[in-house]
Amino acid sequence: MVKTISTSAIRDLLELTEQPHVISLAGGLPNPATFPVAAIAEATANVLAADPGQALQYGPTEGHRPLRAWVADQLDAAVEQVTITSGSQQAIDLVTRVLVDPGDAVVLADPGYVGALQTFRTHGARLVGIGSDRHGLRVDDLAELLHDGLRPALVYVVSSFDNPTGATLSARRRIALAELAEAHGFWIVDDDPYGELRWSGTSPTALRRLTSRTITLGSTSKVLCPGLRVGWAMAPASITKAIVAHKQAADLHTSALSQSVAHRLLGDPAFLATHLDLLRTTYRAQAGALVAALTTHLGDRIELTAPHGGMFLWARILDPSDNPVDADRLLPRALDSGTAFVPGSAFSVQATLPGTVRLSFATAGIDDLDEAARRLAEACERGGAG
Amino acid sequence: MVKTISTSAIRDLLELTEQPHVISLAGGLPNPATFPVAAIAEATANVLAADPGQALQYGPTEGHRPLRAWVADQLDAAVEQVTITSGSQQAIDLVTRVLVDPGDAVVLADPGYVGALQTFRTHGARLVGIGSDRHGLRVDDLAELLHDGLRPALVYVVSSFDNPTGATLSARRRIALAELAEAHGFWIVDDDPYGELRWSGTSPTALRRLTSRTITLGSTSKVLCPGLRVGWAMAPASITKAIVAHKQAADLHTSALSQSVAHRLLGDPAFLATHLDLLRTTYRAQAGALVAALTTHLGDRIELTAPHGGMFLWARILDPSDNPVDADRLLPRALDSGTAFVPGSAFSVQATLPGTVRLSFATAGIDDLDEAARRLAEACERGGAG
Repeated sequence: MVKTISTSAIRDLLELTEQPHVISLAGGLPNPATFPVAAIAEATANVLAADPGQALQYGPTEGHRPLRAWVADQLDAAVEQVTITSGSQQAIDLVTRVLVDPGDAVVLADPGYVGALQTFRTHGARLVGIGSDRHGLRVDDLAELLHDGLRPALVYVVSSFDNPTGATLSARRRIALAELAEAHGFWIVDDDPYGELRWSGTSPTALRRLTSRTITLGSTSKVLCPGLRVGWAMAPASITKAIVAHKQAADLHTSALSQSVAHRLLGDPAFLATHLDLLRTTYRAQAGALVAALTTHLGDRIELTAPHGGMFLWARILDPSDNPVDADRLLPRALDSGTAFVPGSAFSVQATLPGTVRLSFATAGIDDLDEAARRLAEACERGGAG
Repeated sequence: MVKTISTSAIRDLLELTEQPHVISLAGGLPNPATFPVAAIAEATANVLAADPGQALQYGPTEGHRPLRAWVADQLDAAVEQVTITSGSQQAIDLVTRVLVDPGDAVVLADPGYVGALQTFRTHGARLVGIGSDRHGLRVDDLAELLHDGLRPALVYVVSSFDNPTGATLSARRRIALAELAEAHGFWIVDDDPYGELRWSGTSPTALRRLTSRTITLGSTSKVLCPGLRVGWAMAPASITKAIVAHKQAADLHTSALSQSVAHRLLGDPAFLATHLDLLRTTYRAQAGALVAALTTHLGDRIELTAPHGGMFLWARILDPSDNPVDADRLLPRALDSGTAFVPGSAFSVQATLPGTVRLSFATAGIDDLDEAARRLAEACERGGAG
């Protein structure tokens, strides 16, 4: 029997938003204008000149050792704790293969990251959604469920600038979550692709510093570009051993060429500092422009929190009577008006999330964001009373 | 609970064979001297100059459409039947995710490809090994088991120049296998990374031409280089849809840059023809040199069939009394003498394979093969009567 799983609603939607006249706020794509094309071209040429027999050959399943060492250094970990993966999506998949049996409970924020939702479902996990607010996952609600007997295999969090809500898990909740992990013996999977994209405020202490029951996932997709497909998982050595065994069965290893190129760029502190500055400046400006445009064109009909980093803005859209709009029904009208967003329902584990939308300020150029907001307002108007 | 799986014996072994004084016949690595380094450097530069926004961005899970179209063209299939994967190892993993439930029977040759063995085991398959000879899998034996009630989810074959045995499944057995697939409703997974490395004789009709119950896997690892990690699965459209859904959960998509580079090279008929000529000439010479050297140094103490393609030579080593040696115990002595091979036991599903070894003629330089055979003979001598 062929085992099918449903492809994500976002994917199907993205096909509609690719029409050239649409200024899309739907995708989760980094701005291609930020891609370090020249640096990647130069790094590739250098890698192929220096050691083509390494970069083009089969490599160790654990990953390219210099890149593992760089990641370990960033995370204050030992190199033996690091596995290089084909994007952090593969890290989610491998961690699930290692830690989750069919029927096991997996906790995550509701709304949650659809890529993780899909992977957990593929492996037969029982999903337990926990509400979140602008301080991230409501850890108190988790504590109650644990008190009532819930025994999750893992708790998945996007701790900084969450997808979709943009929220960063607060320092207090991190401490509480770490204490719960130790008390109840579950693993925290801290997926952190956006943490470096902070342009204001300071990051709360990383979960890995609060408890050794943390598996930290990272990625080059948002700091360099997604096309390399290079991510990583940092875990205790025993877990890493199992991750590596599963990765060997899954794809032997991640592209040696991609890993070597990524290492050349990440391992160059001058390049990296300049490039991260560019990303933060770009996204800060784009986020500011989108917030301003939404406020101008939608006024009281939109509720949002201005972001301090990341790529996403989570908002609630109201009708003229201050009731939440039906975002699923707003989407086709928005497409007619030439813009797009992702309705909150696409990220739902079990919650109903009336009126909510995820807007990305990362992909569209800054000059288009005002027009996108104007079109969104037009679509709201055309919806009449919602 | 952490679910561990045993890492392959070959991997552990390879670590010992990497010492510089060892001329290894153990690895399954293509000869790095054949890597088209300049062509890859040029293709990468061209891809990054032409469309960096595509090559460095997130891409479709199905794969880069021009590369899918090239694969479809090669296999006389529709583009909708092709998924680009992170090496054909990932194709094995995805097909298993789609078709195999824990406890399902999976049939493969015994000895079999360890990468596939490991993946099937990871997913809880019940492995059924079928003996093979120089005409490949003994399809008659499979027919008997089917007659007795075996109902496999899939039958996995490396149809050309098998790893480890080097055998090519004969035309007659292909027809018989295709008929069994149709009669009993199982899928044939035809893993074919070596088919293009044929330097003499002609290929029997491909299994995909004999039955639509075939899923064909391919790879750039042996025709370009492994480091790109680009492979594919060609399957009926309904299976492809499920493969794509699982791939989305597994790693979103394969490196867009790797795919674009692979397409530039594979899609250039003049380059590809010249490069395949180089590979065939190189491996033909290396295989010839190894067969000659083994005959010279081991004489009657080795039984083998001269290969017509691929990367591997399967042999049986005898002691002075014409009994098979203990290949597991021969290996440390061979390492002491400065050479290495993989004992047949590493590829066993359930068979005992006395005296058998897999020797790769692909990795070592042609000038080292005579010395490797001399060292192997020395190790045999030091073993006394086995």
